[in-house]
Amino acid sequence: MRNLKREILTMVEKDLKEIEIALTDNLNPYLDIVSDVAGHILFAGGKRLRPLLMVLSARICGYKGDYDKVFSTIFEYLHAATLLHDDLVDGATIRRGKPVANSIWGNSTAVLVGDFLLARGLSIAAATGKPKVIKIIAGITENMSQGELHQLMRKGALDLPEEEYLEVIRRKTAVLFEGACRISACISNASKREERAVSGYGYNMGMAFQMADDLLDYTLDNSAIGKEVGADLKEGKMTLPVIYALKEADRNDRLRMEAIIKNTNFSVRDFKLLIKLLEKYGGIAYTKERAKNHVENAKKTLLVFKPSKTRRILEYIADYALSRKT
Amino acid sequence: MRNLKREILTMVEKDLKEIEIALTDNLNPYLDIVSDVAGHILFAGGKRLRPLLMVLSARICGYKGDYDKVFSTIFEYLHAATLLHDDLVDGATIRRGKPVANSIWGNSTAVLVGDFLLARGLSIAAATGKPKVIKIIAGITENMSQGELHQLMRKGALDLPEEEYLEVIRRKTAVLFEGACRISACISNASKREERAVSGYGYNMGMAFQMADDLLDYTLDNSAIGKEVGADLKEGKMTLPVIYALKEADRNDRLRMEAIIKNTNFSVRDFKLLIKLLEKYGGIAYTKERAKNHVENAKKTLLVFKPSKTRRILEYIADYALSRKT
Repeated sequence: MRNLKREILTMVEKDLKEIEIALTDNLNPYLDIVSDVAGHILFAGGKRLRPLLMVLSARICGYKGDYDKVFSTIFEYLHAATLLHDDLVDGATIRRGKPVANSIWGNSTAVLVGDFLLARGLSIAAATGKPKVIKIIAGITENMSQGELHQLMRKGALDLPEEEYLEVIRRKTAVLFEGACRISACISNASKREERAVSGYGYNMGMAFQMADDLLDYTLDNSAIGKEVGADLKEGKMTLPVIYALKEADRNDRLRMEAIIKNTNFSVRDFKLLIKLLEKYGGIAYTKERAKNHVENAKKTLLVFKPSKTRRILEYIADYALSRKT
Repeated sequence: MRNLKREILTMVEKDLKEIEIALTDNLNPYLDIVSDVAGHILFAGGKRLRPLLMVLSARICGYKGDYDKVFSTIFEYLHAATLLHDDLVDGATIRRGKPVANSIWGNSTAVLVGDFLLARGLSIAAATGKPKVIKIIAGITENMSQGELHQLMRKGALDLPEEEYLEVIRRKTAVLFEGACRISACISNASKREERAVSGYGYNMGMAFQMADDLLDYTLDNSAIGKEVGADLKEGKMTLPVIYALKEADRNDRLRMEAIIKNTNFSVRDFKLLIKLLEKYGGIAYTKERAKNHVENAKKTLLVFKPSKTRRILEYIADYALSRKT
């Protein structure tokens, strides 16, 4: 099997290096503690997917300036801010194989450094001098906080409809991907048609990415992603594989699944049984299918642009979103 | 004695009513929980000082548009966001006489609604279409989070120098006041000289306001302000009355004060003794004096403008910052 991840990494090596430098250079705190805590989450082996999509989208839109890497940091800072706040929300203990920041520095520090990162992202957005850019960024933040809240409100809701799940992941994940791509069109002075295309690419990538992420909780040995086994379910997060299987299951199996979900201290054996039932009722396959549709749509939107190396990388990244193992 | 508060309230009655309406109208969440939690903190008898200063500063700068009340909500939303996050940080249980939001809805919800309010403030700022305005707002948020972090890092630091205290309150409080006034100059297209004047007014008001706030913890029956007795000290917050008195005290009294401060479960009797010592060594008087200087400076900066009803109200508010009992 071809190693898609390695191929992509080779093609974007220079961009990723420049993004890393920009992430360090633009943090700009006056307190060391901010660098420590932000660094703990920022430099823990993140994929830099959001800034990378922004840089590549700008390139495909013909961006000619020098600030794409600087602006791309906005999306990693916003992402890191939400991770800091979400770990508190989720009660998670491990993130990317490291203890979560709030377990080391306390809730207060994690919250405040998250606030700083949000503000930093918005300051950099303001530096574009483009009100439209800033409006989009502020809108992203509104959506993300409400998406997370929505998810929190519906913790453990066994009756969560698929539409509501889709609304939650759109707000909490897809708007950031969409915004990263859309803003690159704004700073490139791209046409409306191009802006719609990269926005569509970002939105679909975000949806696919979140679905693939939700699948990872049920399809593999979680030690590979540095999370606890069945972490989503233990937090009461109802994701698509479960939602679909619950809907499709017969009464008996449905009750078995519900019993496992309600017991947030389920055993590994229970969890394996649950995965079996998710497979039996097509929860895994259905989620893969939906994610695949989004990936196809993402690639289709790129046809607005003529073939190029950049377009190829964006297509590869779309395929990778589906096949990724971490 | 004249009732300054009542006089001011009469003069700004119409403005305050319009600010209240704007605060409700511009919140705009899609989840009810956001209205509930944000409303709990937003509509709990806050003084609306920040939006009011913004509206009055805009007026003195000759603002002619219709959006001053809308823009003024930014500062109350940002303020409410920091209160939601700070209550978590401070471990407070009561705010404005009501249980703090995180004790009712949990830390996670309080954090996320705080994030929403931050984002909402920034969205409204973006709607001004003025990058300078947005830059100021984002900068305020960076400063506030770092000011709070700074304070947190130095919790219980008996050796906190006055300069460091001043830096903390500048960032956590004064920049928001300064920003509220400065932005009114931006949206009014005021001259540089006028912008400097209202900014200076705001900065000095913020410093005076915070010093007066810190004094309240030591000068009265705290039931009047809906906080616990000695709340600041119990949280390890070293404020000017204490910093000054510790510096001035003889060895013996200094040790007595330190013993009380270190024991965060001090009795009411201990606390009364501490207040006596603060008075003995001039901590209270010195803080009052410094706050008064800021109030005088605030009023002096207004002399750039010719006498008017608006200028008089701003002067009254400056005096009130010093005399307020809640």
